[in-house]
Amino acid sequence: MTDRENSPSGEDSLIARYFRPLATDPGAFNLVDDAAIIQASGDDIVVTTDAIVEGVHFLSDDPPDRVARKALRVNLSDLAAKGATPAGFVLTLALRAAEDAWLTPFARGLGEDAGLFGCPLLGGDTVSTPGPLMISITAFGRVPRGKMVHRSGAKPGDRIVVTGTIGDAALGLDMLRGGAVTTALAHDAAAKQMLVERYRIPQPRTLLAMAVRDHAHAAMDVSDGLAGDLAKLCAASGVSAVVDAPSIPLSAAAAALLARGTVGIETIVSGGDDYEILCAIPEGSFEAFAREAGTVGVAVTSIGTVIADTSAPKFLDTQGREIALPRLSYSHF
Amino acid sequence: MTDRENSPSGEDSLIARYFRPLATDPGAFNLVDDAAIIQASGDDIVVTTDAIVEGVHFLSDDPPDRVARKALRVNLSDLAAKGATPAGFVLTLALRAAEDAWLTPFARGLGEDAGLFGCPLLGGDTVSTPGPLMISITAFGRVPRGKMVHRSGAKPGDRIVVTGTIGDAALGLDMLRGGAVTTALAHDAAAKQMLVERYRIPQPRTLLAMAVRDHAHAAMDVSDGLAGDLAKLCAASGVSAVVDAPSIPLSAAAAALLARGTVGIETIVSGGDDYEILCAIPEGSFEAFAREAGTVGVAVTSIGTVIADTSAPKFLDTQGREIALPRLSYSHF
Repeated sequence: MTDRENSPSGEDSLIARYFRPLATDPGAFNLVDDAAIIQASGDDIVVTTDAIVEGVHFLSDDPPDRVARKALRVNLSDLAAKGATPAGFVLTLALRAAEDAWLTPFARGLGEDAGLFGCPLLGGDTVSTPGPLMISITAFGRVPRGKMVHRSGAKPGDRIVVTGTIGDAALGLDMLRGGAVTTALAHDAAAKQMLVERYRIPQPRTLLAMAVRDHAHAAMDVSDGLAGDLAKLCAASGVSAVVDAPSIPLSAAAAALLARGTVGIETIVSGGDDYEILCAIPEGSFEAFAREAGTVGVAVTSIGTVIADTSAPKFLDTQGREIALPRLSYSHF
Repeated sequence: MTDRENSPSGEDSLIARYFRPLATDPGAFNLVDDAAIIQASGDDIVVTTDAIVEGVHFLSDDPPDRVARKALRVNLSDLAAKGATPAGFVLTLALRAAEDAWLTPFARGLGEDAGLFGCPLLGGDTVSTPGPLMISITAFGRVPRGKMVHRSGAKPGDRIVVTGTIGDAALGLDMLRGGAVTTALAHDAAAKQMLVERYRIPQPRTLLAMAVRDHAHAAMDVSDGLAGDLAKLCAASGVSAVVDAPSIPLSAAAAALLARGTVGIETIVSGGDDYEILCAIPEGSFEAFAREAGTVGVAVTSIGTVIADTSAPKFLDTQGREIALPRLSYSHF
């Protein structure tokens, strides 16, 4: 085809080639239009947006399919923490060049996760950049009207609960950067791989969304470190919390590194990229919440208690002494 | 405040300081939560996303308030072309540093336009990047259920209609880059300023959305050049078009540059960044459409006719000869 025929532009054919198969929702209009439609059908539409940047949130040599999954999953994690069921997403992709060797696995990983989590591609924009790759996703979820779970709402006496294990992703990143963890795990390939995967591919707790909606007074996902994110949840709720640090759920690898002194507890609770749900569950609901979590195969652990105070949450060691946390959480600025 | 108190992270205080005043919608929860809510109230939610990159879509020394306006307006332009009323937007901002001298005017420009177009900030993400600035916006609009105007739907006999004037932004960009237009307009400061403003600040035709919804068979905004975008609209509709090039509405400055031979018609119809609405209006509705456009102060011009063919749209000169257009439209890849 020549330029004078109805040939799609480079950008249009890029979208058609790589991303149309992901646009399974009728509201995406096969990505041939300039906009998509979300039908709310009486629900509230929950909107969240998160971007990841090469060299900041992922590494240049991270496999493209994992970069795609991470870009989508950090948003799915937010939706889950808000009690929302995924409805779809739009994608902005800033690329230096349209390279098939990168785009093919990227689109494959994205498509697999879109299918897995029931979150189809609704539309997007691809732009060229001379700088680092950037993937910005805006994701949509549905909750019954007025039922989104907020950061605010935690009440004194609530249990502080987290899903999964904390700190693995920070340890994985340390290892990818050749930090102390690398040497400590030199002979443990399985542990190394697990930690790196935890950094590269968050596990959004989508299946727990309904239980969060039904039981949590407040919730958010842990993306910037447990200590800092708990401080944010407490500040939004006008409360404080006491956390029993030894109760924080750790993977075997993280527990071993901590026991050996390779890392301190502050690395565990201040590192980012956990993408677990942190929530405040009323004491009387905890059993039901834990049971429902078990039904969907998500581990939940009670790590502390909300208290009526406005100071920062305290992390106590086995002797009940407060642990000094010099850096509360990761900040980009 | 020290790190151990409930102090917001750098990112959180950046959001609070610059962007909270823009979050006037109750569904934005003052930007203190991880997600926003859009209530559809029986309408369809139209979603569009467009990003702009420093050095690609705007220049490093473009005033920050204009960069902000452009980032929002390119999305508002899409909503208007789809017949949608603005409902809100989310913002992803990739910055090298959080510089007050840039963020203050950026937030001011964004806030003014959010107010002007009734499109409040609902949420966002700020990330650091070592590369060029990037602003990615996902905007939401409302249409009555099933009433979004598509690219497809143009029918033989429909008039091809555009709003405003075509080509000014491309000429403005040429001038900012020191191209031929610079010399030609060396002594016409007013024309220069007008063209540059047309490049820097699109005029989304938000007020025309209802008339587009009521009358257009098909519509899209002209962002990548009239010729290329018309080809896309025709391809999506399974039709072609004949355009009377002398009918294309031009500003006095563009008309003078064309008459003088400084630029050719291909620069006018293939340049990007017009952000006017291109639509197919049935012959019998054109008068009503033009009248409604007049009511809201938007100029509309009939420039051609949809025909039953699948070849690329033809642009004819005053003698009815086809104009050769070597480059159909701007493409990033």
